Amino acid sequence: MDQLEKKVTEWAEENAAKAVSLLKRLIGEKSMFGNEFNAQAVVLEKLRQFDMDIDVWEPSIKQLKEHPYFVSEREDFHESPNITAVKKGAGGGRSLILNGHIDVVPEGNPAAWTYEPFTAVEKDGKIYGRGSTDMKGGNTALLLALEALEACSVTLKGDVLFQSVVDEECGGAGTLSAVMRGYKADGALIPEPTNLKLFVKQQGSMWFRITVRGLSAHGGTRYEGVSAIEKSLHVITALKELEHVRNARIIDPLYRDVPIPVPINIGTVQGGTWPSSVADRVVIEGRCGIAPDETPEAVKEELTSWLKDLEYRDEWFKHHPAEIEWFGAQWLPNDLPDEHPLISALESSFEKMKGAKPIREASPWGTDGGLLHHAGQTPVIVFGPGEVKAAHQANEYIEVRALIDAVKIISLFMMEWCGVADGGDGADKGTEG
Amino acid sequence: MDQLEKKVTEWAEENAAKAVSLLKRLIGEKSMFGNEFNAQAVVLEKLRQFDMDIDVWEPSIKQLKEHPYFVSEREDFHESPNITAVKKGAGGGRSLILNGHIDVVPEGNPAAWTYEPFTAVEKDGKIYGRGSTDMKGGNTALLLALEALEACSVTLKGDVLFQSVVDEECGGAGTLSAVMRGYKADGALIPEPTNLKLFVKQQGSMWFRITVRGLSAHGGTRYEGVSAIEKSLHVITALKELEHVRNARIIDPLYRDVPIPVPINIGTVQGGTWPSSVADRVVIEGRCGIAPDETPEAVKEELTSWLKDLEYRDEWFKHHPAEIEWFGAQWLPNDLPDEHPLISALESSFEKMKGAKPIREASPWGTDGGLLHHAGQTPVIVFGPGEVKAAHQANEYIEVRALIDAVKIISLFMMEWCGVADGGDGADKGTEG
Repeated sequence: MDQLEKKVTEWAEENAAKAVSLLKRLIGEKSMFGNEFNAQAVVLEKLRQFDMDIDVWEPSIKQLKEHPYFVSEREDFHESPNITAVKKGAGGGRSLILNGHIDVVPEGNPAAWTYEPFTAVEKDGKIYGRGSTDMKGGNTALLLALEALEACSVTLKGDVLFQSVVDEECGGAGTLSAVMRGYKADGALIPEPTNLKLFVKQQGSMWFRITVRGLSAHGGTRYEGVSAIEKSLHVITALKELEHVRNARIIDPLYRDVPIPVPINIGTVQGGTWPSSVADRVVIEGRCGIAPDETPEAVKEELTSWLKDLEYRDEWFKHHPAEIEWFGAQWLPNDLPDEHPLISALESSFEKMKGAKPIREASPWGTDGGLLHHAGQTPVIVFGPGEVKAAHQANEYIEVRALIDAVKIISLFMMEWCGVADGGDGADKGTEG
Repeated sequence: MDQLEKKVTEWAEENAAKAVSLLKRLIGEKSMFGNEFNAQAVVLEKLRQFDMDIDVWEPSIKQLKEHPYFVSEREDFHESPNITAVKKGAGGGRSLILNGHIDVVPEGNPAAWTYEPFTAVEKDGKIYGRGSTDMKGGNTALLLALEALEACSVTLKGDVLFQSVVDEECGGAGTLSAVMRGYKADGALIPEPTNLKLFVKQQGSMWFRITVRGLSAHGGTRYEGVSAIEKSLHVITALKELEHVRNARIIDPLYRDVPIPVPINIGTVQGGTWPSSVADRVVIEGRCGIAPDETPEAVKEELTSWLKDLEYRDEWFKHHPAEIEWFGAQWLPNDLPDEHPLISALESSFEKMKGAKPIREASPWGTDGGLLHHAGQTPVIVFGPGEVKAAHQANEYIEVRALIDAVKIISLFMMEWCGVADGGDGADKGTEG
């Protein structure tokens, strides 16, 4: 670490309380689906302390609906503004998007929480609350990294675009709107909870709904009908076999220890209306994983064709095919080549702080990185201070230590990636990728 | 046919319009669950024309709940009176219960009806309307048979007990209440729709609810959970195997042409709450047939023990056993020995009218006969003018011809079974069984 890097990380350590305080304020603003306004106001208040160009807008449903990747079921984005703040670089460096979502999932059963979900209790080095890990902790790390560079008078060569987006938990309309507004960069970092590991690939996913048909009859003469429940067993078996075939193709060593890299999860099954009638309809809903190198279209085609082949298992399906539709949310996968400079830059920054290389992993869930990559042509790495296992759970928490480490590593990474034009010591740290 | 028999059947033919008119009035009174009062009033009006002792009472829930065969979910029988009218015989003959239920099932989707369900339209020799076949047509045949004997001054030796009961469609609390009130006889006839065939055995049935447990997890890491949907496939397979084993035991020639004499129908399946979560609970509801020679208790035991053995198929069930409960309605089976005099008496009466023996069959559904038999120790034969296939359907109908034939055959049967003490010609037609 050079002098300037040392100065920046020391500032981050000395100002840990600022990070904690900001995170607590963010957790205090309950920013669920359609209600992100107050949390964004806290972000804005912070951003206005920096020398940045701030763009605040409500995404346009009309415009979003024209995009093939738009999947949200929202009708408008009233009270759900997006923010992008741009720090122009001195020139000659790589640009960087720092993207975090401000929306959180509902708290679930309040009785399952030891601490009130939106009060942000600090205890034994942890901060508890909905969104602490996913991902207001990550967003706080980004804002504090911006502040650290500003406080230490570090001027970067490349532009930095900080984004606080809405709607990630419902499919990513916030990030998609930012992409459609023209915000792209040479690289992006999303501080979703990774326990400070580098998530270089993310599984995408889509929801499907399969309808299986039968023929109703009285239960006492059930042989006069055709049970959609019995027929649905063929569908379930076929989906399990397809899952096996799809996963056998995955040879990426990152998935070596993952039992099922891209699962087909059958989440719900609903069939029949009366105990003593033969069910004439079963509806199966589930989630199909998308491998990092796959497109949703290819996966849809494969699943549809697999279901069509059910007629070879059972003639019934020839005249009563299982119908498939895709509904609800969709998360695009993301994929960073092994030798991508985003990885080496972040590994180098991590090593400077921690004295060892970070772990690389692939995540079993998607992020807005899929949209930044596929819709915005911006390569993305996912790295953040939260705990994967705490996300979406009761008593969600984040370790304060990890939060401050993330501030430091992300500050160093920004200097590494964008290049330093003129810091406290005037050294040029930029490298071109 | 002797003179008196001829006179009775001729009266029935000449007074066909009375039967049609009474049936129309009964159909016009919408006597669904909890609302049988007005239809019973029409029955009472008719009964009061005869020389009978009439007993009208609202069944007592408190008393019924003490009976092991009580299964109704009703809280009271307000506006749902039962009727039993007794015609004392001259003595020395066999007593007979004539039992019909006055309640009807709901009309279902009104758009599926060509004729208004409670208007009783007569067209092309048929009367359309809810309850025409199941079983106000049968009840009308009973009442007209009573009237035929009265009109022809036929005095029977044995007592005749006419019963118009509530609640058959919900499990038989009306008939059970009549049994508990002490009404029993040497034999009973229930004119449920049999197309004028003799139903000498009836399949009973019970409803079951099986809960299968799993372990929740995120769909992207579904291998961290245990899918209750996958586990439920074992349960469904086991139930199908048990159905096979149970039906392989049935050697009664009456069931020779029935593909599955006592089916286990899996009617509904409901599992999981979210497409991208692993389902931790599946609930399966269904109907289990009870063979004529089985008790509900033995069937419950067999099914419970079969589910217990799931642990040999999959260890999961050892610590997370499938739970079974019995809910909703229950219909007891009924079984008449091949040589029972009820059969020979009815066959003889049928043959006198039709010139050929009637068809004997076993029904795939239960009737109140199971309760009369098991709770009331009264042997039961089921024989009526309705069409099995029209019951519970839209455009339910009955053939007027079959209705009048039933009046005649049932009149002759009453004379045959109870014996004639003193008719228009004074002949003694009684036989002891």
